[in-house]
Amino acid sequence: MTARARIQRYRDGTFSPRADLVAGEEPLEIRLGGESMSVTMRTAGHDIELAHGLLHAEGIIATAADVVAMRYCDGVDEQGRNTYNVLDVQLAGPVPVAARSGARAFVTSSACGVCGSASIDQLKLRTRHALPATLHFDPDVLCAAPDQLRSHQKAFAGTGGIHGAALLSPDGSLRLVREDIGRHNAVDKVIGAALLAGDVPLGGEALLTSSRASFELVQKAVMAGIGMLIAVSAPSSLAVELAAETGLTLIGFTRDHGFNLYSGADRVIGAA
Amino acid sequence: MTARARIQRYRDGTFSPRADLVAGEEPLEIRLGGESMSVTMRTAGHDIELAHGLLHAEGIIATAADVVAMRYCDGVDEQGRNTYNVLDVQLAGPVPVAARSGARAFVTSSACGVCGSASIDQLKLRTRHALPATLHFDPDVLCAAPDQLRSHQKAFAGTGGIHGAALLSPDGSLRLVREDIGRHNAVDKVIGAALLAGDVPLGGEALLTSSRASFELVQKAVMAGIGMLIAVSAPSSLAVELAAETGLTLIGFTRDHGFNLYSGADRVIGAA
Repeated sequence: MTARARIQRYRDGTFSPRADLVAGEEPLEIRLGGESMSVTMRTAGHDIELAHGLLHAEGIIATAADVVAMRYCDGVDEQGRNTYNVLDVQLAGPVPVAARSGARAFVTSSACGVCGSASIDQLKLRTRHALPATLHFDPDVLCAAPDQLRSHQKAFAGTGGIHGAALLSPDGSLRLVREDIGRHNAVDKVIGAALLAGDVPLGGEALLTSSRASFELVQKAVMAGIGMLIAVSAPSSLAVELAAETGLTLIGFTRDHGFNLYSGADRVIGAA
Repeated sequence: MTARARIQRYRDGTFSPRADLVAGEEPLEIRLGGESMSVTMRTAGHDIELAHGLLHAEGIIATAADVVAMRYCDGVDEQGRNTYNVLDVQLAGPVPVAARSGARAFVTSSACGVCGSASIDQLKLRTRHALPATLHFDPDVLCAAPDQLRSHQKAFAGTGGIHGAALLSPDGSLRLVREDIGRHNAVDKVIGAALLAGDVPLGGEALLTSSRASFELVQKAVMAGIGMLIAVSAPSSLAVELAAETGLTLIGFTRDHGFNLYSGADRVIGAA
């Protein structure tokens, strides 16, 4: 997940050479029945989970049983070695039209249409799970979550440059901590892992991300039946709009001393 | 560029309602000769520059003269009003095969192939400009750059959640400061603006970004003939590799007290 680099560090007027770690970044091509569906820049590791999560967010699969097989194929380097950067997926059913390469099935492409409200309407049509009615978190559990996530992030500790995502329970425990150079990939790995364990919809937990909250992350949460998205940094306008429309609780700027609550206040304010 | 939101702020055990600003996020579809080429989630504003920068990074245009016209089209909301989220581009020449929708011309898709070294080889073939031989920056100019960028970021000041990019001169001056919810978009806006001004290749300046340095950002810099990329946060492994291969000076973790230098040390260390 990390790579070594020889660097010069500049501090207080002086350069000094040192060995450093940087976050790994490699392309992953996902093919459906041999045809290219998408290429994403990702940190290698948990690729099978990532592919499950991405296909689920796209509405291409509903459960792990919709996938017959996933295997690494082709993609050799100059020495003819497998690069493990091409993943071929065999679905139980036919490949949906929207996922074929000519239709450009990239997450953000296929989802968003030409305006924000059209995107939101499209997503509502694809959503399979109602968001949980009874989920409740104590505010102080939310405040403690980012530090807890960071303490679980092995690659972040070495590189200072990799996103984390995880599932948070109301009792404050974290599970399925995943890291990736792309925040959407880290979330896909978490949801993919839960899908493989048969745990989707994830109505009893919140999704935690070390990053900002974009439209895309709210979309992934809603598709997995998750009732709350907790972001360490800022949300976007379309993320706030989509969260309000779908009933997701959206929390941003989460720190040990507080946070901002953008929608779905009843899952945090008031009696459990 | 920003939108208003009603939020609940939690601080020290207490919730209080307040009005807040969030960074704008809307899809932008770029069409070539009427055919969809890509959709990106962006902060509205400077769309023409964004499209020029994206087409340049993709190797589809070399100068502003390769574009005959760009205009907003279609994309109406429920009331029939133009959403300004679809931009139709008319090129002077034929649409390149790689940019047609069936070929999935998305930046990261078309560029990266199945392994990092294949991506780098592809980029080298597309590169039009030699990187500058004589560019030189004083280390302390680099240290001061992030604070300077932030002080120019109007939308960041209100939202705390939007990336910035700009061109930095060796004398410490900044120009073409652009903001976007996507760091790649902010960079496309800067390079697109320079292209429209006839300033590409940008051999006399460095590209500054408030974000991490990914493969994609190094790629955009190299395509524009920029000799140095200064990132406020961490670089990825593939960014470091590509910078070293192409001779770009890559700087990360840039703060007022120092930075890390990953490649191209001669543009910073030693006599000007």
